[in-house]
Amino acid sequence: VFLSDFGLDDEFVGICHGVMATLAPQTRVIDLTHGIPPGDVRRGAMVLSAALRYVPAGSVLLAVVDPGVGTARRAVAVRDGSGRLSVGPDNGVLSLAWSGGVAEAREIVGAPPMGDPSATFHGRDVFAPAAARLAAGAAPGDLGPELTAASLRAIPWPEPVIDGGEARCEVLAVDRFGNAQLSIRSTDLPGLGLTPGARVVLGVRGREAVVDHVTTFGQVPAGALCVLVDSTGWLAVARNGESAAAELGLGPGDPVRVRMAAGPPPSSGVG
Amino acid sequence: VFLSDFGLDDEFVGICHGVMATLAPQTRVIDLTHGIPPGDVRRGAMVLSAALRYVPAGSVLLAVVDPGVGTARRAVAVRDGSGRLSVGPDNGVLSLAWSGGVAEAREIVGAPPMGDPSATFHGRDVFAPAAARLAAGAAPGDLGPELTAASLRAIPWPEPVIDGGEARCEVLAVDRFGNAQLSIRSTDLPGLGLTPGARVVLGVRGREAVVDHVTTFGQVPAGALCVLVDSTGWLAVARNGESAAAELGLGPGDPVRVRMAAGPPPSSGVG
Amino acid sequence: VFLSDFGLDDEFVGICHGVMATLAPQTRVIDLTHGIPPGDVRRGAMVLSAALRYVPAGSVLLAVVDPGVGTARRAVAVRDGSGRLSVGPDNGVLSLAWSGGVAEAREIVGAPPMGDPSATFHGRDVFAPAAARLAAGAAPGDLGPELTAASLRAIPWPEPVIDGGEARCEVLAVDRFGNAQLSIRSTDLPGLGLTPGARVVLGVRGREAVVDHVTTFGQVPAGALCVLVDSTGWLAVARNGESAAAELGLGPGDPVRVRMAAGPPPSSGVG
Repeated sequence: VFLSDFGLDDEFVGICHGVMATLAPQTRVIDLTHGIPPGDVRRGAMVLSAALRYVPAGSVLLAVVDPGVGTARRAVAVRDGSGRLSVGPDNGVLSLAWSGGVAEAREIVGAPPMGDPSATFHGRDVFAPAAARLAAGAAPGDLGPELTAASLRAIPWPEPVIDGGEARCEVLAVDRFGNAQLSIRSTDLPGLGLTPGARVVLGVRGREAVVDHVTTFGQVPAGALCVLVDSTGWLAVARNGESAAAELGLGPGDPVRVRMAAGPPPSSGVG
Repeated sequence: VFLSDFGLDDEFVGICHGVMATLAPQTRVIDLTHGIPPGDVRRGAMVLSAALRYVPAGSVLLAVVDPGVGTARRAVAVRDGSGRLSVGPDNGVLSLAWSGGVAEAREIVGAPPMGDPSATFHGRDVFAPAAARLAAGAAPGDLGPELTAASLRAIPWPEPVIDGGEARCEVLAVDRFGNAQLSIRSTDLPGLGLTPGARVVLGVRGREAVVDHVTTFGQVPAGALCVLVDSTGWLAVARNGESAAAELGLGPGDPVRVRMAAGPPPSSGVG
Repeated sequence: VFLSDFGLDDEFVGICHGVMATLAPQTRVIDLTHGIPPGDVRRGAMVLSAALRYVPAGSVLLAVVDPGVGTARRAVAVRDGSGRLSVGPDNGVLSLAWSGGVAEAREIVGAPPMGDPSATFHGRDVFAPAAARLAAGAAPGDLGPELTAASLRAIPWPEPVIDGGEARCEVLAVDRFGNAQLSIRSTDLPGLGLTPGARVVLGVRGREAVVDHVTTFGQVPAGALCVLVDSTGWLAVARNGESAAAELGLGPGDPVRVRMAAGPPPSSGVG
């Protein structure tokens, strides 16, 4: 299972596939996505984590979002508490995927199989070879010396600030359909009184919109805004048949406020 | 054979691959394309249909272009008159791929293999699991109750309006090279007197261009417009080495008029 | 190993995969990239060549960057001096990948397996079938008549003009991260006195920037420009954490001048 911020316009992903096919010819590689925004370690970590229940048992995870390539940051291979193996830079991109803690961690060292390592493409020279070797049966201990679990970088889950019945959150991501995922989990909703069927006030860029909280797009009229719990369990702003992000001018990192609407339902739309 | 409007920037396609690799580990999945414009059911249906002669016999088709996800539209698995199996929403996206009619149709029901279905990602929770099961040997009858063929939604092929030697058509799609595919089939051309070597008048946005009707780009000078029958049998406006769509400002859905040029060949170009 | 300029928004790549899976069901296909700029034969040739050491031994190369499709340019299958097989148009796209010269060359002729060839999609109708047959065990001689090596088109490597301690070169490519690859090889650097640690003057669009020559991005401050030898051995202009190409307005083909900085290191930045 291979995730990166390489995109598909360049040959970076294909080269890594070539390396893995050379070292682990029997292994099937699933491209989770290579569309992580360049250098966005947190997004990579979240996407990897959300994918875990949908990949074959025993898969080796390979995550390369590595703005520090060539610097002192370490390359690591980790076996988590569930036995799952993951490979990537030690910058937190793997850390949300570890179930049951870290059982074993190794620093990846040693010469790459195809010549000296470059300073700028460790996906090809370090991470893909290591993941392929694990997939082909090597043990983490074959890759390098042991590291303590405490020395590994982990990144926190994003958390909304809930204050007086209002949640201050941010846009985590905008997908192809223009849905804007917010940093509010479905489990945060009861504390805000937000249940499907309620109406919600969204504060975006100094303006407010009152929208329905629904379970799927088609429950609001074509073109109408809504909020819903998306397929990975986060609250998202959506629009039936169109892009909510374009309508509201929302992009990753933008702040959004969310609260339950009081009083009789006013008319929808950004006012 | 997997087609969708998911794009590749997000992880939607990779997650579906993970589900299929889990349920049908021996099955090879061919990504036909995931670049169908969001929600464009007709485009998905046309691309799927045009691909049929180029995929391995016995392939299961999986097409997810599903603007009505989570609403009352049904999820279906169909065996067509040729024995081919297809899976997708019952919105017509499969319907142009059915050869010899519908032999068996089933509604896909039942719990997904990996937890409760979401309301917004049936590609992951309903369609990919069903297609994987069929590929792994399940019968359509294992997926849910029988539906009548007459109850399935089908969409019509786009048809030009031919009137007084002129065809009024629309742009079906613009490809990466800027070729604009028109809703005129090669079989419509004799009625218009349009044979390779003739000159053609294109009416676009209130202006007219007289161009050559050729068989390939290289038969006109670099930068010149032309029309030709494309590799799927539709008439297309093209430009040697450049984008015809950019030159003419054409996008999907735009109206275009086409007729044979009369009299001596005038000079080329949009006048 | 499949490279093209088809992009992934259309179904061209998927159709070729369908053809190959039909004719060579046991063959694994590695997508090197399909993001070569449309019609850019030289870029395709360079990317293919740079990938050779990272693909499995015995791989058949398939490269389709073919602006002359349907014209008199030939379709060829080549066995190089190392025994490697490659398939593509005879326009030079394969030529940088031939190690040890051309041992055998064949023109690909004969009816495609799935009907008459189109005039515009030889990837589907000519090249993918030929590559699949070779991968499945056919010999080049099964594809068509012999050609002389001398008759094949080859393209030259780009070369900088070095004059008075200054190299005049061009931008070969800009990757997703905004790194601008220049037409100066690492082996050209000693002649210019450019070693990591030196400072370099870049002449871009009539302005000059003095930047550090480093080995990886992280050796300069966030947002600072630098030059480094990239992972394929070319000099590249980079920027730590941001896009050098956007900062400098650089795109493929743009001229750049490079020389060693004289005197005491001035402050960095475009002056």
